[in-house]
Amino acid sequence: MKRIVILGSTGSIGRQTLDVIRSLPGKFKVVGLGAGNNWRLLAGQIREFRPLAAAVSGEIELASLKDELASDKISELYLGREGLETLASLPEADLVVVAVTGAAGIYPTIAAICAGKEIALANKETLVAAGHLVMELSARHKTGILPVDSEHSAVWQCLYGRGLDQVEKIILTASGGPFRQLSLKELEGVTADRALRHPNWNMGNKVTIDSATLMNKGLEVIEAKWLFGVNYSKIEVVVHPQSIIHSAVEFLDGSVIAQLGLPDMRLPIQYALTYPDRVPGAVPKLKFTDLQGLTFEPPDLEKFPSLRLAYEAGRAGGTMPAVLNAANEVAVESFLEGTLSFRNIPFIVESVMEKHEPVNRPELAEIMAADNWARELAKKHIKRFNLS
Amino acid sequence: MKRIVILGSTGSIGRQTLDVIRSLPGKFKVVGLGAGNNWRLLAGQIREFRPLAAAVSGEIELASLKDELASDKISELYLGREGLETLASLPEADLVVVAVTGAAGIYPTIAAICAGKEIALANKETLVAAGHLVMELSARHKTGILPVDSEHSAVWQCLYGRGLDQVEKIILTASGGPFRQLSLKELEGVTADRALRHPNWNMGNKVTIDSATLMNKGLEVIEAKWLFGVNYSKIEVVVHPQSIIHSAVEFLDGSVIAQLGLPDMRLPIQYALTYPDRVPGAVPKLKFTDLQGLTFEPPDLEKFPSLRLAYEAGRAGGTMPAVLNAANEVAVESFLEGTLSFRNIPFIVESVMEKHEPVNRPELAEIMAADNWARELAKKHIKRFNLS
Repeated sequence: MKRIVILGSTGSIGRQTLDVIRSLPGKFKVVGLGAGNNWRLLAGQIREFRPLAAAVSGEIELASLKDELASDKISELYLGREGLETLASLPEADLVVVAVTGAAGIYPTIAAICAGKEIALANKETLVAAGHLVMELSARHKTGILPVDSEHSAVWQCLYGRGLDQVEKIILTASGGPFRQLSLKELEGVTADRALRHPNWNMGNKVTIDSATLMNKGLEVIEAKWLFGVNYSKIEVVVHPQSIIHSAVEFLDGSVIAQLGLPDMRLPIQYALTYPDRVPGAVPKLKFTDLQGLTFEPPDLEKFPSLRLAYEAGRAGGTMPAVLNAANEVAVESFLEGTLSFRNIPFIVESVMEKHEPVNRPELAEIMAADNWARELAKKHIKRFNLS
Repeated sequence: MKRIVILGSTGSIGRQTLDVIRSLPGKFKVVGLGAGNNWRLLAGQIREFRPLAAAVSGEIELASLKDELASDKISELYLGREGLETLASLPEADLVVVAVTGAAGIYPTIAAICAGKEIALANKETLVAAGHLVMELSARHKTGILPVDSEHSAVWQCLYGRGLDQVEKIILTASGGPFRQLSLKELEGVTADRALRHPNWNMGNKVTIDSATLMNKGLEVIEAKWLFGVNYSKIEVVVHPQSIIHSAVEFLDGSVIAQLGLPDMRLPIQYALTYPDRVPGAVPKLKFTDLQGLTFEPPDLEKFPSLRLAYEAGRAGGTMPAVLNAANEVAVESFLEGTLSFRNIPFIVESVMEKHEPVNRPELAEIMAADNWARELAKKHIKRFNLS
């Protein structure tokens, strides 16, 4: 019985992780659950899974949670970032699923690695902002970083122990998002509502917007660089609107190995949980003869400059990817609030990157400082946009 | 430097194997070359590759070859089936490529296994007719049977060491052949010429016709059963006209791993030769964004009953697959000669199968007897067809 901690249990990936665990009775024991503000949903999860420990982000939420669970004392309850780190290093845990969103995911990931836990990583920012630190620590503590993202899970499944010296390139597929076929002019007027009706995957709002700008793919390119240890020149993005081929690896001899499936996050989640085994699960099966045809096209970097920016940030290295990510988070938030247009998201990101002098091989504190700096500058630039 | 024997060096696979060897200088030494009747081409190959030994099928060809090479004594020259067996068990060989066509391939394959050689198997009949014998011998002598067929190579690459206990099913793709979209009525009148204009793969005539009837896929189903040790219920055929996905494996959890590439036999040949390594070769690379769309459909067993017959023969087991194969060889030969219509190929095969009482777990001699019996009966039935 593998003992699991889920950080971000009330988010989209967290809930789907619990779905997978429900569908495989007897295989897993949930020993820790960490959430943000949604203490009501967390209370329900605690009652169902009875973990040893749980955490929420704020004092008010902690108080409410304590009230709610008052009668039955089930779990030790912890608070905030420290709370997540406590869960991440629980002695009773084997595997920590890091499904919190944003840069906040970096701290508990590092705590879990240093405690020797295996990591199922669904938090993009950890590798984007702190890839060199995280991979070094993971090597030192001999803990695996198992990808949960469907694309990286696909690449990981395609490699399956094959040496990187046999790899010609990694091919990350992208759905292309809901605005793939719009003109530059049409992109001007798109709303958050329209962006959130994403065709293929069941994801949170932030990721859905990133998917529409292709920033999501850009962040995945940087993640792939760290996870698989390849140069950017060996990572290619191909738009594949049907999201059936989840990614692929081209080997030196020209042979391509691809992973396919229906677009359902429970498949990569389950694989990370049961790895190295595979077991029958709740995920519906792909039927080739039901497919309407698989198509591929190059990404349009003029319409979606975020992908270009991500490659640039990745190649610049140091703190630049953290800056890219932080500025993008702020810009996407503004877009979701209706205070920034869709096309201006990458312009904000680029304007912040242009002002940044990256620090090489930064410490965590330097990464966080760059992240903060970028957020402030992005907010300032957005304000200026809105005044002008 | 891997030392290679090629049996069937003047055929389509044999010539492409030599292409691969030419494109990877310093990696291989050709130590044996075996051919059928084409002694002229063989003489050229001997002059180029200077193997220790070579063989042709008939005494007249042997005499001509000796004449041709008289001045320079390069290789020991051998004759016929015994000649092929001598090459297959050359002490100086590491790997034997069995690329002879027809049931004749079984003998040297068995000789090579018993001599402890690794086998790169391009001869379908070996596993179709004698799968149980060959796999038992290969287990006993701890020699690998490496598939050269693009579909089995694809499955082999997709499995890459994963246990069969994790496999839900094997999905063999089929181009569907040149007549995929013809009606039953239109199939009536097709000629050998038209069938030989096969769109996707560069293959010999016999295989090209088998591809058009789907018998080729049927034989591959039987091969897959033996190569990978799965039941027929776990082998599915999907028509994929673009021949880009060369085959796939669905795992228990629903994840599908597929192998893709341009339809070029040199890719699976090279993989079998360099396995477990992969090296850059002469094969053009697949570019996803050049693809016009990948489509899939179920095979039409009414128009192409040969596939159904192959499953039936496989499930009946014993000598039945040998009978299927032998009757098909005779029928295809008649079609190529213009003495049998395309649609009558499977009717001949079925009529012979109906008369056969399969022997269970047959010895090689029993397989060969069934093969001979089926050929005679097929010829008789074809004659009767043509008289009526």
